[in-house]
Amino acid sequence: MQATALQETNNRATVTPSSRDVLRSEHGITLFRGGQLQRFDVAYETWGTLSPAKDNCILLLTGLSPSAHAKSSHQDATRGWWEKMIGPGCALDTTRFFVICVNNLGSCFGTTGPASVHRESGRPYGLDFPELSMEDLAQVAHRVVLSFGVDRLHALLGPSMGGFTALAYALQFPDTVGRISLISSALRPQARAIAVHSLQREAITNDPAWCNGLYTPEHRPTVGMRLARKIGMTSYRSAAEWEHRFGNSRTEFKSTSAFGVEFQVEAYLEATSKRFVDNFDPNCYLYLSRAMDIFDILSHGATAVSTLAGIKTKAIQVIGVESDNLFPLHQQNQLAETLEEADQAVQFVVIDSDKGHDAFLVETDRFAPVISEFLS
Amino acid sequence: MQATALQETNNRATVTPSSRDVLRSEHGITLFRGGQLQRFDVAYETWGTLSPAKDNCILLLTGLSPSAHAKSSHQDATRGWWEKMIGPGCALDTTRFFVICVNNLGSCFGTTGPASVHRESGRPYGLDFPELSMEDLAQVAHRVVLSFGVDRLHALLGPSMGGFTALAYALQFPDTVGRISLISSALRPQARAIAVHSLQREAITNDPAWCNGLYTPEHRPTVGMRLARKIGMTSYRSAAEWEHRFGNSRTEFKSTSAFGVEFQVEAYLEATSKRFVDNFDPNCYLYLSRAMDIFDILSHGATAVSTLAGIKTKAIQVIGVESDNLFPLHQQNQLAETLEEADQAVQFVVIDSDKGHDAFLVETDRFAPVISEFLS
Repeated sequence: MQATALQETNNRATVTPSSRDVLRSEHGITLFRGGQLQRFDVAYETWGTLSPAKDNCILLLTGLSPSAHAKSSHQDATRGWWEKMIGPGCALDTTRFFVICVNNLGSCFGTTGPASVHRESGRPYGLDFPELSMEDLAQVAHRVVLSFGVDRLHALLGPSMGGFTALAYALQFPDTVGRISLISSALRPQARAIAVHSLQREAITNDPAWCNGLYTPEHRPTVGMRLARKIGMTSYRSAAEWEHRFGNSRTEFKSTSAFGVEFQVEAYLEATSKRFVDNFDPNCYLYLSRAMDIFDILSHGATAVSTLAGIKTKAIQVIGVESDNLFPLHQQNQLAETLEEADQAVQFVVIDSDKGHDAFLVETDRFAPVISEFLS
Repeated sequence: MQATALQETNNRATVTPSSRDVLRSEHGITLFRGGQLQRFDVAYETWGTLSPAKDNCILLLTGLSPSAHAKSSHQDATRGWWEKMIGPGCALDTTRFFVICVNNLGSCFGTTGPASVHRESGRPYGLDFPELSMEDLAQVAHRVVLSFGVDRLHALLGPSMGGFTALAYALQFPDTVGRISLISSALRPQARAIAVHSLQREAITNDPAWCNGLYTPEHRPTVGMRLARKIGMTSYRSAAEWEHRFGNSRTEFKSTSAFGVEFQVEAYLEATSKRFVDNFDPNCYLYLSRAMDIFDILSHGATAVSTLAGIKTKAIQVIGVESDNLFPLHQQNQLAETLEEADQAVQFVVIDSDKGHDAFLVETDRFAPVISEFLS
């Protein structure tokens, strides 16, 4: 698939050092599995300044749940999800690079997704949203890049699910990426990750408040969302970290509800799931979770090697974490080996951290040097 | 705590080569955390014949969910949960040993638990059942052993949660056990295991049909039970096994329900959870799950070493499995090291299997030789 320049109605006026914006496309797109969206919005944020030659652009893709707010800015002073990685002198050095982060298609932070109101019906899409794929997230992110007139990215970064989107991006637009950094990702989710994701979806759809996707803002399936997030947490973090932090310590006050919170690790799960439950849309979660599970680079060719050989990059970095049990290290190893067989210039980096799959979010000081060096 | 001989109303007539029976105690017991049971039943099965000297008795404790039916018998020809481990010439050789398997206190297969009808109220105990501990399961199992006039077990075997019960047994009745085999167990659950167990409990209590424990047989919280079992399965089995068996293969027919079963690993979870959902009682599950989480040998003494030093055994075997991520190998290693520091004669065996925590159930051929040798 070749990128074509499209006339977008872009309400961005000028490229400022940091900006929050929405690209509003009135052009429909055909999704990877055949569905159609007649129009879409895509929210993004930028930091740094695009060079006159437009050759310093970095596209940062996200995991399933973050917004485009990777870094605080004048318009939004709240801490971003990769706050310490982006800025002057940081790994994504905004004195050198123009960084774009895009909110995923199907998400609920300004980009069109199942929670968005369908213009014709006046109601949220809900389960009428077409089947979603990583390839669609990549296509929409590519539209944002094109809207800046950037033909070729200096680099494309994809942590976690964003690694799948990055692969889908490079496979669909093979001549448009200079360097790719794939962080705690894989060629596809392993069976256990699919199992865990499916249980998260089941926790949501089990909640009577889900109502087959027809919940109202006042009656969201928060009970199911809370459990889904907690199930996720047991796969995002490592057993060693929790044993070190919590062991079998009890909470100071025992919950009064039967079989309620009693251990510190339960209280931690309760507290950390709250923000997600309050902010993320259940149907969006279901769509993105399944889109991740159905991702497979073999959708793009007969073999992984022949498929990946088609990408024209300078270098690809694969980063894995020893304690990751969602996308375990052997998957990054396999990804790196397959890329090498496909004649890509591969750099494989193993990060020693007990923070599991979430290490890239919470131990940025370990990732910053290797990403910084790779981008230079 | 010293065992005292108790007058039990035992409806067993003679010791037969195999028998299914129930010990009905009209004597109340005080539970480890202070609660009272005015009476209780405990279901058990036996295989082999007790020697005249009563010195060939093996007590087999179980994980959370099995019944006492570890082996098929004349009275129950269905396959037992450890079918190949028990019988003439097997690891638990019934030509030599008299094997007893006890259904846990708090369970629902003939032993008193939250699903049992309280004699005074005429209703199931439900959440009125007193707080349960591994120590109580051990105490009740000890009553069964005493009812045969056995003062000292030849051996005590505890796989998984049964390992906690075995430790609680040996700590409470320190002079009554010759050998102990602790299989895929630990000194206490690690934080991640507590987290996973708490999510299983949350899945059940989230189900509106749970009704704060007051569900009826016709309206059980099967939706929550199904999810709880599936969450458990992701910790019982290893990622490597599932990747090998299922990868990201799809089912032949896609579910018609939104976000229903689509991958083979999902279909597997659906199928394997059914038997559990149909047979196990939700409140019993909640009680036993929490009893496991609150187990800690430090309830019995100031340090693990000083506590374990009080047990008078000939030898203790600790078996661990490389791919276990619920009770990971470092926990069995820690258990073995602590027992050695406590001057116990310890045998530490590592089983190379990709079947995770469930290996002792599904790869009995790997366990049989080491257990057989240890028992001889």
